Parts: sequence; structure tokens; C-alpha cells
Amino acid sequence: MTSDGRTTGEDGARDGKYVEPGKAYDRDMRYIADRITVDGRDGWPVEAGRYRLIAARACPWANRTLIVRRLLGLEDAISVGMPGPTHDQRSWTFDLDPGGVDPVLEIPRLQDAYFARYPDYPRGITVPAIVDIPTGGVVTNDFNRITLDFETEWTQFHRDGAPDLYPERLRDEIDTVARRVFREVNNGVYLCGFAGSQQAYDDAYGTLFTALDWLTERLSTQRYLVGDTITEADVRLFTTLARFDPVYHGHFKCNRQKLSEMPVLWAYARDLFQTPGFGDTIDFVQIKEHYYIVHSDINPSRIVPDGPDLQNWLTPHGREELGGRPFGGGTPPPPPRPHDTVAAGHNPMT
Amino acid sequence: MTSDGRTTGEDGARDGKYVEPGKAYDRDMRYIADRITVDGRDGWPVEAGRYRLIAARACPWANRTLIVRRLLGLEDAISVGMPGPTHDQRSWTFDLDPGGVDPVLEIPRLQDAYFARYPDYPRGITVPAIVDIPTGGVVTNDFNRITLDFETEWTQFHRDGAPDLYPERLRDEIDTVARRVFREVNNGVYLCGFAGSQQAYDDAYGTLFTALDWLTERLSTQRYLVGDTITEADVRLFTTLARFDPVYHGHFKCNRQKLSEMPVLWAYARDLFQTPGFGDTIDFVQIKEHYYIVHSDINPSRIVPDGPDLQNWLTPHGREELGGRPFGGGTPPPPPRPHDTVAAGHNPMT
Repeated sequence: MTSDGRTTGEDGARDGKYVEPGKAYDRDMRYIADRITVDGRDGWPVEAGRYRLIAARACPWANRTLIVRRLLGLEDAISVGMPGPTHDQRSWTFDLDPGGVDPVLEIPRLQDAYFARYPDYPRGITVPAIVDIPTGGVVTNDFNRITLDFETEWTQFHRDGAPDLYPERLRDEIDTVARRVFREVNNGVYLCGFAGSQQAYDDAYGTLFTALDWLTERLSTQRYLVGDTITEADVRLFTTLARFDPVYHGHFKCNRQKLSEMPVLWAYARDLFQTPGFGDTIDFVQIKEHYYIVHSDINPSRIVPDGPDLQNWLTPHGREELGGRPFGGGTPPPPPRPHDTVAAGHNPMT
Repeated sequence: MTSDGRTTGEDGARDGKYVEPGKAYDRDMRYIADRITVDGRDGWPVEAGRYRLIAARACPWANRTLIVRRLLGLEDAISVGMPGPTHDQRSWTFDLDPGGVDPVLEIPRLQDAYFARYPDYPRGITVPAIVDIPTGGVVTNDFNRITLDFETEWTQFHRDGAPDLYPERLRDEIDTVARRVFREVNNGVYLCGFAGSQQAYDDAYGTLFTALDWLTERLSTQRYLVGDTITEADVRLFTTLARFDPVYHGHFKCNRQKLSEMPVLWAYARDLFQTPGFGDTIDFVQIKEHYYIVHSDINPSRIVPDGPDLQNWLTPHGREELGGRPFGGGTPPPPPRPHDTVAAGHNPMT
């Protein structure tokens, strides 16, 4: 509950409403900003087995953490709990687990972990969140920082051959690209979909497609966003592109073209999708259910579209011609473990 | 008002709601079935200047009448009044006309013409409607019959070179094709969009795309639906295809593919669009405004999408290779008159 008595949910919904009439969408960016570090300066030292990552497959912000965890081979160091795709106004729930309870944290609702840390936690119950297993409290839900810390603080637990997703010499460029991608694309699609006025929507639509044109230009001559290997910047763009045709194009009215009608971005997205660690984290069924069922103020019938046909994600992309070394001096991750595997039929690869 | 006190609008809306929770969409097909004929057997003889066709550009059923009137050259015989794209729960209105009043009928709302005929008219105030100018009352709103009568009863007023859109030897086949197209495509998209349950939607989606696959098969080897010239069957399919990507794909969740992703149907639709009398009746701006603003129960924000890019309607279609004679032994209609011309910028041709 907020101080004015309203319930705040994920993505900043108030009382289950995402659209505020007459206004542009304004994401609440105040997160629990503690960091898990090697030196433990916030009280949370890097330690295998101590933390549980809560990451719904549906959520693009959480999806980043699942990809980076796979690419870096952090499965043994950081376990994962997965809420189902839909949730009520207050919280993500562990409705996919036996008994509706996360088997490690033994809680039915993610908000229980937030309240274990802050009994009056006033803001959105969001994923990704990292929970301290001994105390059951959330350490951080600062999605922007979580993957960077996986890359730079958890290095002692990286697998052999793990790529460097945040190379020091490229950090400035990665940050710069990621900042624009966040504002105009990752969050830009939400600005379209949750616009409370035609003007707010028109503005967001213009900004989004201008940014996609910029990305098209950039990616027409280089295989990846920054440098010649996969970096954090690619992970961040990918999770939005994967949701573009199944959700954002229709549900959020991001419909100048489908992703599949933007040849450069579409080939780029398929290249990543077909790279181990990316497509194998995508659950198109959960993604569609989440958006179309949860956002009932823009889809009151809660009917989930049967389209689009997603088999096309497996078609040849031809991006190898641009060169680049996907994992730099490293190697692709092995196939996902059973617990980390997307359900059969939820992805054209499964 | 209906007998139970609810207001019925176009497309069978009850109190402005199109979706009935838990149910499939059920179009009220009871129309005023009087016919205007040469022999005047229903009391309405064919007579130039006596009747006014009311046809909103937004509406696919009304669009059929605008196309056929153009193709046959009935402009001098039958005048046209055009309500704006949006309307309230009760009626289409003449909000585009000076003073908000149809200049010939001198009424602000189409329901006035319905009530002039039947003071307690209980059903939807629909377009197309043909109004008897002397009495101001609606003669018929039976869209299924209106174009057939233009073709077969109004022949004395057809222009020189008017095509035969309903040739006697092909009527059975035209009727058979048109029946399936109506049920599964023209109305099929509404069954998807106004479905009150996931099951009703899933069923309608399956039926729609099966029908589109059947049409693809049929049109892959022949230029037009029936015979080798344009017929009534093509007019009926075209008005739905023209709305597919701008509206039905997103708003009605008909999203297995966009029309532009179904090569045969897309080429067929562009071929007709580029044929005089078809594309020049299409107002994409009004079409989008109508659906997205009027159906507020499926689009509560009433925000109208800025996409898709529609310039692609003018790209070469290559259908000439299939042969066929668009107008048979006849000729294309001349360009639309000023009153019949779509507003600048509302169509990639204008």
C-alpha cells in the first residue's frame, strides 16, 4: 500500500490500473538498491547458495537475469524461483510450484519476501528480485544493477569459458547505448501501451520507432550492439525484441511494423534467439498470458491472442556474414538444465 | 431502445458494449428487408434522385455500397450522405457535415431516418441505409441485398461500360463463395474481436485463418474469386481485407499473420486496391478512428494506433500474370467526383 492507501503493483500499477487517464506512463524507478558484492560492503557478500533469484519468465526485466545467469554459468551459485505469468494487483505468486509455494523460500507470494525485509514496503513487488535465503528478505530488485553485478562481482563462480559481457574498455559505450535503449525501447514500449492520452502515445510511438531506426542503422554493419561480441547491451535489447511481435505490436500498439518486418532488427533478434542462453530462456506462452491477462485495463476481456505464428524465429538469419565472435574468447553455455528448461510447446525450440 | 430497455447500436452493441462476457458474438441479422426494384413491388420503385444512400466510410458493410456505386456509375441516380467515423451508443451522426446535419435529409443523426419510418425501431442503427428522400424514412438497411439490387435492379442507370458484377451464369458460385466469406471472414473477424470467452475467440480465430488459407489456395491460380472478372464476391472480400492490418490484426486479435504477410491475399488485395473504384473509397484514418474509438469496451483508452505504415498498398502486385479481365467487356470507372473523394492524407493515393 502506498501512503495514500492505494496498492502499488509491478510496473507501477495503481490498484491494478496501468493507464492514468490524461497522462504519460511514469515508471517508478525507486528500487531496493543494495548490492551483493565481493567485499560485502552493503552487508551482502557474494556467496554460493545463499541467494535465490526470483525471475518470472514473462517479465523482460527478469528475463535479462535468466539470460546472464545462463551465459555466465551461475546456476550452481544462484538458484532460481519462478512465479507464474499472471498475478493479482499485489504480487507475483508461486502458482506454478507444487502447493503454490516456492520450494526454497516456502512462501506463496513474492511480497512475503519484500515484507520480510521491509514490513511496510510501499512500492511495486517486482521481478527480478534477489532474496537472502537465511532471512527470507529481498536484498535487491534493482534490475539495472543485478546483471552488471552478476558480470563483475560474481566472477569467481563464472563457468569456464564464460564470456565477458561487460568488458572494461567498452563499459562507457555499453552504458550509453543501454541508456537510450532503456528509455526509448525497453521502457518505450510501455510508454506506448500505458499512455493515458493520444498525445502521450503519439510521442512515445515516434520516439520508439526513431530509436528502432537508429538501432537498424547501427546493426546493419555490425553483428552486435557494442564491439564484436555479445555484451550486456545485447541482452537488454533482446528481451524487448523477443516480446515485440507477440505482445508489444498489438497490445501496446507499437505497430508501425512488426519486428519481422524490420529486416535488420529481425535478423539480429533471430541471431541472438538461436544463440544458446537467449532463445532457450524465452517462454512465449507465459509472455503472452502475462501481458494480456494482467493488464486488464487495456485488455478488459483478458483474451490472449492465438497469434502470431512464432516458428519464424528459427529461420536462417545470415548475420554470420558480419563477422563477430559471439562469445569472444569464451564458449557457448551448455544446454539448460531440466529445472531451467522452458516448457514443451512454449517456444519453437521446445 | 430494445424491449428490455437497453439501447442497441450498430453491429449489435448493447448499451455501447460489444462483448458479452462468456459468450460468442452474435450479430443481429434482422434488417429492414424492403427492396427497391424496377417493378416497385415493395412500394419502392427504382427512380433516379429519390433515394439517398447513407454510408460511413469506416464501415466495411457500407464500403461495399460505395464501391459498387462507383463501379456501376450510379452517382447521378443515388446520392450519398456520410456519417463520421465515430458515433455514440445510439446512432451514427452527420458530424462531418456543416452544422452537423446531412444537407439533403436535414437530420443530425441517422436514427432520425429510422424513426421516421418506425417510431419505435428497436434494432441497431446501421449503415449502409437507403433513405427515401421525400418521406425521410429508411427504406432498407439490408446490406446483403443493397449491392445486389444496385447490380440487378438499377441497370437502366448504370454508366456506359459498367461491369456486370453479378453475372447470371455465376450467381450460384458467387453466392456460395460469398456465404462462406461472410460467415468466416467478413463477420469472422468480429467473432474474434467481440468474443466473450477465450474459447469463443479460439474457435473464431481457427475458423478465420482456415478460411483465409482456403482463399489463398483459390486465389493462387486465379486473379478473382469467381470467373475471370471482378464480381460482387471480390467487393465483399475486399472491404474486410482493407481493414485487416490497420484494425483487425491488432484490435480484433486476428494475428496469425498480417495481411501483408500472406503473399497471395496481399497481392490480391493490392490488385483490387489499385483498381479504380476500390482503393479510392478507402479512408484509413476514418477506419482506424471508428474501431478504436467506438469499441471502448475492448479499447478503453480509445487511443488510436499510429501504425501500420500503409504506403505498401501501392507496391506492384504482379497479379496481371494470372490473366483475367478486371471489368470484363466493360471499362474502369472515371476518377471519383469531388464529393466522393477521400480526404487528403487518409489514403496513400490522396
